[in-house]
Amino acid sequence: MKFSLVFGAIVGLATASPFLDELEERATPPINWGVALFNSYDTIDVFGVLDPLFYLAFQTQINLSLIARTLDPVYVQPVTAAANVYNSTFRFSLNPTHTFASAPKDLEVLLVPGGPALLFGNETETVNFVRKTYPKLKYLLTTCTGAGIAAQAGVMNDKRATTNKSAWARITSLGPKVKWVSPARWAVDGNVWSASGVTSALDMIFLFIEEVYGAAAATRIEGTLEYVRKTDACDDPFAARFNVPPSGQC
Amino acid sequence: MKFSLVFGAIVGLATASPFLDELEERATPPINWGVALFNSYDTIDVFGVLDPLFYLAFQTQINLSLIARTLDPVYVQPVTAAANVYNSTFRFSLNPTHTFASAPKDLEVLLVPGGPALLFGNETETVNFVRKTYPKLKYLLTTCTGAGIAAQAGVMNDKRATTNKSAWARITSLGPKVKWVSPARWAVDGNVWSASGVTSALDMIFLFIEEVYGAAAATRIEGTLEYVRKTDACDDPFAARFNVPPSGQC
Repeated sequence: MKFSLVFGAIVGLATASPFLDELEERATPPINWGVALFNSYDTIDVFGVLDPLFYLAFQTQINLSLIARTLDPVYVQPVTAAANVYNSTFRFSLNPTHTFASAPKDLEVLLVPGGPALLFGNETETVNFVRKTYPKLKYLLTTCTGAGIAAQAGVMNDKRATTNKSAWARITSLGPKVKWVSPARWAVDGNVWSASGVTSALDMIFLFIEEVYGAAAATRIEGTLEYVRKTDACDDPFAARFNVPPSGQC
Repeated sequence: MKFSLVFGAIVGLATASPFLDELEERATPPINWGVALFNSYDTIDVFGVLDPLFYLAFQTQINLSLIARTLDPVYVQPVTAAANVYNSTFRFSLNPTHTFASAPKDLEVLLVPGGPALLFGNETETVNFVRKTYPKLKYLLTTCTGAGIAAQAGVMNDKRATTNKSAWARITSLGPKVKWVSPARWAVDGNVWSASGVTSALDMIFLFIEEVYGAAAATRIEGTLEYVRKTDACDDPFAARFNVPPSGQC
C-alpha cells in the first residue's frame, strides 16, 4: 500500500533503502541528543528540531534526553503574571527525562532553545549546564534567543552566531565576545550551529540532518513534514524588518 | 529598549497598539481553544498551531485546553516497538489539562492533530469526542493526518478538505464522503479548516489568525517567529512528489 511505502517507510516499516547505504558510509553520526529545557521556552524552538529528529530516529538510532533543573514538569506559560494582561489561560507542561545533574555523560548533540523567558529571567543553571557540557559535545545547536544562553556560557566566544532579530539588542548584549551575524537565517562556526528566530530552527535542522546524516534522510523527512526548506542562510528579511544593523558575513 | 518595543510587545509589555484597535472592531473572536490529543501525535501538528497562539494570547484572551482520554501524560514515541527498528530512545510526554469527559463545555475552536498513530492505531475515543464536540464549535481545525479523525467523525462529510500527501490513500479512505482536495496546502470549507502535512499547519494558522483576529496580529507574530508564510493554498509540491491524483479545487 502507498502509505507503507512512504509515510510507513519513515516510521520503520521498510528495511532496505538507499538512505541506509548512504548512512552506513558515514563515520558515526551522533546518536545521543539532549535538549536543555527551562520554563517558558518557545515550543517551535524545541519541536522544530525534535519533529524532524523523531522521524530520523526510525532510520538510525537516536536517543533523546530532555534535561532541566529538576524532573518537575517544565511549563510553557506567560513568564510573569503582569505580562498576561488579557488574563489568558495558556499553560501546559512537558516532562523532563533528566536533570542537569543526572544528564547522560555521553551526550553528543545539545540543543539550547530560546523563548520569552530569555528576555526576562535569569537562567543561570541552564547557562552553567551548557558551559559544563559543551567540551564533551560533537555539536551545539541553539535556536532563537537560546543563543543568549550559549553566549553567557562563553561557548560562542569568537564564533559566528545569530539570534532572533526581534530580540537582537537584548540577546547580543549577553555575548560581547560573540561574532554576531546579521542578516542570517542561521550561522555555523565549527561545531556551533545557531538559528535565528523560532521557525528558522526548521531550516537549520534540515541542513544539519543533510550534512551529518545524509541528503537522503533530509529529503525523505522534508516530504513527510511537507516542508519547503529555505536553503540560503543569507535570506533573512527579518533583519531589515527589525532594523538590525548589518554585521559579519552570513 | 528595543526588545521591549518588539519582542516585548508580543509578550504584553506594551499597552496601546493599532492591533488592539483593529481587534476591538471585530465581533467576538474566539477565546476558548482545545486540542484533542492522543499518543504518538506529531509535535508540529500541535505546536505549529500552539506556538503562534501562545503569542496571540498576550494580545487578546485565549484559553487553552489540552484534552485527552485520561489525564495521564500523552507520549510522543514510536507507535509500536516493531517500528522502532534502530532501538532509538525517543520518548517524551506532555500533560493534558482535561479529559474528553471533563472538557470545557464552551470550546469555540478545536484542533485535531495527526501523526504516525493515525496510520496504525484506532483512535475511536478521539473520533467520538470530535463528533460530539463539533456541533458546538465555531471552528474545527485539522492538521496533517488529523483529517482522518475528523473524517471518521463524519464532520467533514460533503466538505472540501485535505491531508498529508505522503499518507493520502490511507487517510482519504477513512472519509469516502469528504470532498478531498489535492494539490492543496490547506483547504477551508465553512467552519472546517484542514492543513496538509505537518508544517503546513503554520501557513494555515497564520491565515486563520489573519482572518479571525486581524492582519495586524498575524503580521506581528510572523515577525516574532521569523516565519515567511506561504499564502497560496494551491502551492503544494508534495501532491506531485507523492503521486497524488488531482482532485477538487484548491
